[in-house]
Amino acid sequence: MKKQKPPEFEADFTERTVSSEVAYDGGLLKVMRDAIRLPDGAPAWREYVVHPGAVMMLAFVDADTILLERQYRYPQRRHFIELPAGKLEPDEAPLATAKRELVEECGFEAAHWWKIATLHPSIGYSTEAIHLYGARDLRNVGAKLDVGEHLETFPARLDDALEWVRDGIITDTKTALGLMWWALWKNDGA
Amino acid sequence: MKKQKPPEFEADFTERTVSSEVAYDGGLLKVMRDAIRLPDGAPAWREYVVHPGAVMMLAFVDADTILLERQYRYPQRRHFIELPAGKLEPDEAPLATAKRELVEECGFEAAHWWKIATLHPSIGYSTEAIHLYGARDLRNVGAKLDVGEHLETFPARLDDALEWVRDGIITDTKTALGLMWWALWKNDGA
Repeated sequence: MKKQKPPEFEADFTERTVSSEVAYDGGLLKVMRDAIRLPDGAPAWREYVVHPGAVMMLAFVDADTILLERQYRYPQRRHFIELPAGKLEPDEAPLATAKRELVEECGFEAAHWWKIATLHPSIGYSTEAIHLYGARDLRNVGAKLDVGEHLETFPARLDDALEWVRDGIITDTKTALGLMWWALWKNDGA
Repeated sequence: MKKQKPPEFEADFTERTVSSEVAYDGGLLKVMRDAIRLPDGAPAWREYVVHPGAVMMLAFVDADTILLERQYRYPQRRHFIELPAGKLEPDEAPLATAKRELVEECGFEAAHWWKIATLHPSIGYSTEAIHLYGARDLRNVGAKLDVGEHLETFPARLDDALEWVRDGIITDTKTALGLMWWALWKNDGA
């Protein structure tokens, strides 16, 4: 069957900003509360977290093996297995963040990088975008964890990590998606 | 090669709660700010959104076709194509939420439901869990959108929707993951 585009949508559900204010700014989380107009003109409000954006990396130790991390995630009160990831610093380009975080968290530089996808993990209440990169030809240069940052990095076969997603051992959505993307489509830039 | 479990981890990175307080409660978003102790005993703090949990549905019109929605997501200032989803009401079981939201948003009841996975979309700053269900044997009973809720539902072939993920037309992480899960693994309960 021929590949289909999405249907031609006629309805415009755009919500218009009336006013915007910082409702909370606690150091990690900045919450906006905006007065808006719904598409039918009715007044309403929207609350959301302003996020600087993040990166995530499929870092290949060899063709079948990537780097994973294990760390404690306080909001969920348990340890998670995740792909390496990190937040953009102000004015930092996503690829620069990816290179910086792969060194800081995992202790590796990569000779070859490529973009895989951009994703939006929490469209209901956050401005966050996650930029997914691939990296290969790794060289160990030693990790530089931030003070107070506690995590361990370990290599895993992609096929095993995918089974951990299927079995519910990996439940972090971004990590699951990164692994599944590779399983389905690999990537032309690799 | 034999299927591997994750390595035996020795490090315990558990962060202990010292005190917990509501830092912001705006109606949609409730933000906690907790004083904690890091695994090395040092004091620190954690900020995170308390979320009631959510459901997402792969609702099958036929074996190759599911329901999608299009709606405007104000935090990202654009329309998104998404799988049907919704938040748990207080004391509501996830499957009950899934059944309720499939009627309210899409106008369908389903004779057969099954659980696919539980996922955590924002482990860095939210308690949210998303429960993914499958639904089939649909019957149109008419949608009941909440006041101020503007969205349209449309059927799409799974193969097409997967291409929209790959092409960057679908970037909502939960939706992409739901579609990719089905592509990779289907589900025994279906």
